[in-house]
Amino acid sequence: MRIAREPRHDILFEPVPIGPKTLRNRFYQVPHCTGFGVDKPFSQLAHRAVKAEGGWAAVCTEYCAISPDSDDAPYVSARLWDEDDARALALVADAAHEHGALAGIELWHGGVHAEARESRWPLVAPSQLATGYRPSAVPKALERADIRRIQTDWVAAARRARAVGFDIVYVYGGHSYLPLQFLSPVLNRRGDEYGGSLENRARFWLETIELVREALGGECALAVRLSVESHGDDGVLPLEDGLAFVELADPLVDLWDVTAGGLVWPSRLDTGPSRFFAEGYQLGWTRAVRERTAKPVIGVGRFTSPDAMATAVRTGALDVIGAARPSIADPFLPRKVEEGRYGEIRECIGCNQCYARANYGRHIGCTQNPTAGEEFRRGWHPERIPAATEAAVDALVVGAGPAGLECALTLARRGLQRVHLVDAGGEPGGHFRWLTRLPGLGEWARVVGWRRIQLGRLRNVELLAELPLDAAGVLEYGADVVVCATGARWSPHGLSAVTHTPIPGAGTGLAHVLTPEQVALEGLRPPGERVLVYDGEGYLVAAGIAELLAREGYKVELVTFLEQIAPACDETLEGYPLRRRLHEAGVAMRRATVVREIHPDGAVAETEHGGRVELAASAVVLCTQRLSDDSLYHELAARPEALAARGIRALHRVGDCVSPRTAADAIFDAHRLARELESPHPALPLPHLRERFVVRAP
Amino acid sequence: MRIAREPRHDILFEPVPIGPKTLRNRFYQVPHCTGFGVDKPFSQLAHRAVKAEGGWAAVCTEYCAISPDSDDAPYVSARLWDEDDARALALVADAAHEHGALAGIELWHGGVHAEARESRWPLVAPSQLATGYRPSAVPKALERADIRRIQTDWVAAARRARAVGFDIVYVYGGHSYLPLQFLSPVLNRRGDEYGGSLENRARFWLETIELVREALGGECALAVRLSVESHGDDGVLPLEDGLAFVELADPLVDLWDVTAGGLVWPSRLDTGPSRFFAEGYQLGWTRAVRERTAKPVIGVGRFTSPDAMATAVRTGALDVIGAARPSIADPFLPRKVEEGRYGEIRECIGCNQCYARANYGRHIGCTQNPTAGEEFRRGWHPERIPAATEAAVDALVVGAGPAGLECALTLARRGLQRVHLVDAGGEPGGHFRWLTRLPGLGEWARVVGWRRIQLGRLRNVELLAELPLDAAGVLEYGADVVVCATGARWSPHGLSAVTHTPIPGAGTGLAHVLTPEQVALEGLRPPGERVLVYDGEGYLVAAGIAELLAREGYKVELVTFLEQIAPACDETLEGYPLRRRLHEAGVAMRRATVVREIHPDGAVAETEHGGRVELAASAVVLCTQRLSDDSLYHELAARPEALAARGIRALHRVGDCVSPRTAADAIFDAHRLARELESPHPALPLPHLRERFVVRAP
Repeated sequence: MRIAREPRHDILFEPVPIGPKTLRNRFYQVPHCTGFGVDKPFSQLAHRAVKAEGGWAAVCTEYCAISPDSDDAPYVSARLWDEDDARALALVADAAHEHGALAGIELWHGGVHAEARESRWPLVAPSQLATGYRPSAVPKALERADIRRIQTDWVAAARRARAVGFDIVYVYGGHSYLPLQFLSPVLNRRGDEYGGSLENRARFWLETIELVREALGGECALAVRLSVESHGDDGVLPLEDGLAFVELADPLVDLWDVTAGGLVWPSRLDTGPSRFFAEGYQLGWTRAVRERTAKPVIGVGRFTSPDAMATAVRTGALDVIGAARPSIADPFLPRKVEEGRYGEIRECIGCNQCYARANYGRHIGCTQNPTAGEEFRRGWHPERIPAATEAAVDALVVGAGPAGLECALTLARRGLQRVHLVDAGGEPGGHFRWLTRLPGLGEWARVVGWRRIQLGRLRNVELLAELPLDAAGVLEYGADVVVCATGARWSPHGLSAVTHTPIPGAGTGLAHVLTPEQVALEGLRPPGERVLVYDGEGYLVAAGIAELLAREGYKVELVTFLEQIAPACDETLEGYPLRRRLHEAGVAMRRATVVREIHPDGAVAETEHGGRVELAASAVVLCTQRLSDDSLYHELAARPEALAARGIRALHRVGDCVSPRTAADAIFDAHRLARELESPHPALPLPHLRERFVVRAP
Repeated sequence: MRIAREPRHDILFEPVPIGPKTLRNRFYQVPHCTGFGVDKPFSQLAHRAVKAEGGWAAVCTEYCAISPDSDDAPYVSARLWDEDDARALALVADAAHEHGALAGIELWHGGVHAEARESRWPLVAPSQLATGYRPSAVPKALERADIRRIQTDWVAAARRARAVGFDIVYVYGGHSYLPLQFLSPVLNRRGDEYGGSLENRARFWLETIELVREALGGECALAVRLSVESHGDDGVLPLEDGLAFVELADPLVDLWDVTAGGLVWPSRLDTGPSRFFAEGYQLGWTRAVRERTAKPVIGVGRFTSPDAMATAVRTGALDVIGAARPSIADPFLPRKVEEGRYGEIRECIGCNQCYARANYGRHIGCTQNPTAGEEFRRGWHPERIPAATEAAVDALVVGAGPAGLECALTLARRGLQRVHLVDAGGEPGGHFRWLTRLPGLGEWARVVGWRRIQLGRLRNVELLAELPLDAAGVLEYGADVVVCATGARWSPHGLSAVTHTPIPGAGTGLAHVLTPEQVALEGLRPPGERVLVYDGEGYLVAAGIAELLAREGYKVELVTFLEQIAPACDETLEGYPLRRRLHEAGVAMRRATVVREIHPDGAVAETEHGGRVELAASAVVLCTQRLSDDSLYHELAARPEALAARGIRALHRVGDCVSPRTAADAIFDAHRLARELESPHPALPLPHLRERFVVRAP
């Protein structure tokens, strides 16, 4: 089955010298958040270790605070404030080396963009200006002694990093952090030698680079991460200034890690979701830097296609393929390319659940890779899985949505004798059959595509379509283990979090009241021209339906009782561009409004402060709440004797038919059940390891 | 100076039997969040210990999760999942006992209102209904095996609590958590014996209470925290049902901890901010319960007045004075009442910084009590403070706002020979002179009042008003140590986080462009009738000015570039009622809008999606950004020889004149500097102790 690597991808496996070190190939895991920092050192270790094992030439920690006035609590950053921090992070360096990778550490000072809610130090910045990142924070304008102290802290952190074995040490200024706040002509209004001309604005960063370089003593490569152009309220940097800085600093730098944009919209470019940003969307900036430097350039842009990567290198857009999200979705991406196992690459879908979970949930996770973040605490490896203790087991998985696919695949990987995955429809995918047709969500189809391909490689699993099974059908079909993965559907009655009852006037069989499935899967279209899309979820579906219909020519109003349009998308960095795109598509938006009644000409609604409003519409699409399709499970569970009589020893359910949730959590649940099939109570997850301060008796 | 306790307060010091235990008096620290849980066991210990020492009859932990499907990460709750958790919490029980107090633990299952972002277990609830608390979360409807498992977990947690010495064990259901989700006729739609009639809906909670009672074996008191009435989208409970439940459960319960309302607005009543809720605002509900029970009733309501407390007990509204916030602001409140030291009570101002910091910042803090949350990590005690190592020191503090008052007071408490606190104005208070005049902020004046009273008790400190000092004046005045606490002022030019430059048309000396100080302190009023208040901060001031002017009859529009009106108030639980009150006062509100230009007839603004809008107004009040009043500090700092010549050995600054921030952080900063005056670099806070997982060499 295995094919050799395409020669056109050989370029990706050329070593790249960076100062005193050498990258073994062109794959580089750039710094990215995990929620681990130094709080969960073994989760940190294990998460980076699988990537080193998977072939990345270097793995980096997330942003690492150099001093307490750059404390980012309640968000979790790494820290190098003392020797205990250094010991925690040394685990990453050791693990990287064990697998032949380099280890990088992104030393960071956030300036006014830190939080300091733990240390309670005043935030600092070149000048006393609030920014669009967190407008209520007004910094202390740095005194000269502060500048020296921060540079001293940076050097101390660099020394610690060097001492514990890091190979690449960053002087991070990208994304509008302190060095960039100095470089910005808008945020830096100083009258001394650190402000004014470009040379003066660059002085802080250049001095810091020079001091750190000295501290590294030629033993580590010095990297700089730079947003080379930004136009946001968190710190404007014109491209010319960014490029001029590259030229000024170039002799002192071993590696340029190039990004663009800042932390706030509309100038945010980092971690661009696939709905709005295509693969390689930052190449214009890396190319611009590459033309001004003699040093290797790293760039990111959600690269998962070896062709796109090789082309980017070959055409001189960059030297090294940086990856955060693709390395989370597939830690073994480099090795798979190297070995020509292209079909096995688990491509990132650009949903940004990793970002949301790491930053707001304090523990990274991934839709495509259910083992991400679980490497240490559950002992899960992305590529290896323990064989089932009893192989002579047949499993029947009912429902081939994301959870069913994942469950069947994982059971098959564990070596069960026979796994049958059956679905009532003609195509697998469950709700992903239609979700991925909503505007911008095409890349999400990789969730289904990857699993189908892997199923096709295994001999002990079979996918059977167009095979609807009721309880009698399951009993007749037979298996040792039955797993229901029958998903969920949107309430056709408008059941929602604010009413808990059907909306008067809603119901099935009405031409003017539709569900998302009817619109996007069945192809039903609303009568008339004006459509009210009513959202109770605040994530993907209602906004997607609204945009779909608006682009078809309907006059659409998106109404929600939530305080913001699609607020869950703010955690995935999709909120701002989504609302902008909806606006551009002509979708009217109304927040904090509860629909109280539906009639053929529209709806009666209640506004934020209790007013009543009539919303004219020829139809309403209800995206209020999902309900589990759990009848099969309950019918079977109610017949234990019948199950026993047919030799069915265990009945389980996974994914949305347990509780409707994100695809990431549904896939996690399915993967977990398959891994824990032998546990005494597979429905209850086994305990995870917790990294915590443990009090012992003296 | 010390007077005896008033006899009418004696009732507060009667012991109260609760099951097998006895409260030594009627002061009870109810469960409240800290951000510590079992993550920071020594911070937890130290924070509760000072309250036990301060005379509370019982101190409780925060809500404590009994099982992984009630994991509230990323929020910090306590947990009793295993023996390590128990060992961490045992520290609290031991510390309470050491000071003669009882220790309580609030065992909790959140049902659909947990987060489970760490454990990734599905959320559970009686029925599959989303709620207004987090509408995107759709729970698993509990199977009977789940119910048994949760009850077993509850019992296991209770056993652990008993084993490590807790005296009071809760079966917590208030605030719309799992037991209340069962009790609610709206959230519980079950068809089995756990749903339907009141008896059925009460069954889960009653069974759990009974099982826990059995597990406690008569060694601990069993407490139930109950929201006796709620009408929110997170779980309606009619008062009759709540009271009927009290009667059903009464024989099994030793102590009723009574609250009302749920987690969402407008039915949220817990932790009511002083802007909207008066002292004792929950007494109607405690009284209703007290009429139905034979057991002691605890109630809360921000009680700080011994008279109000004694009256509440005497009139039968409750038996025990519960306190969260008042115990944070003054851990020694009971002892001060007991000893008749009424003037020393540091009264809570109801600003809810404690709530915001514990929940969103993961570490509690307090405006009134700068030592709150710092007991362990900085070793600060609320009542005791180390004497200065060198007493023969004179200090001059310039500026008698909150930070200056706190700094002078703390220096004086440390025993410096002489502390002079001078202010240019006639009254101390800094910006609190006018902030406290904004609608609803009257209680905030306690910040100034308490400090003035304490200064008056000390012989080594003097407050001198109407004494403006410039740099020459300071040099002439003389002192060993000079501390500038000169505060900050609102930019009269409209400098803001989104423009970083003056707004064209803004400036000083214009009748139609005002600052908050001009309106609220100087009493200037806008010309004409229509006022645009422009907010760049999102917290107190702009909304307060808008309401003030609207109540005077102006037609006010509150405009902000932020995505919500006063978003910082959402963290302090002031956002929803504030917006409602603004609406009721006739204030029009416009969010996500940037003012680009001001003219005598109004302003030109840019809307969310880039549109241009003319805003008619006869005047604009600019609440865009504060700027430190730091010129005195910088003038003095620039003259080291002059300082030396006058014997001034040290020059410092504290509070808003370093960087404008919350009063809590400014007071903290001032307190810290006074404590750390002898450190080599008092401007740099000494390192705080961190509770973390420490990696050691094997």
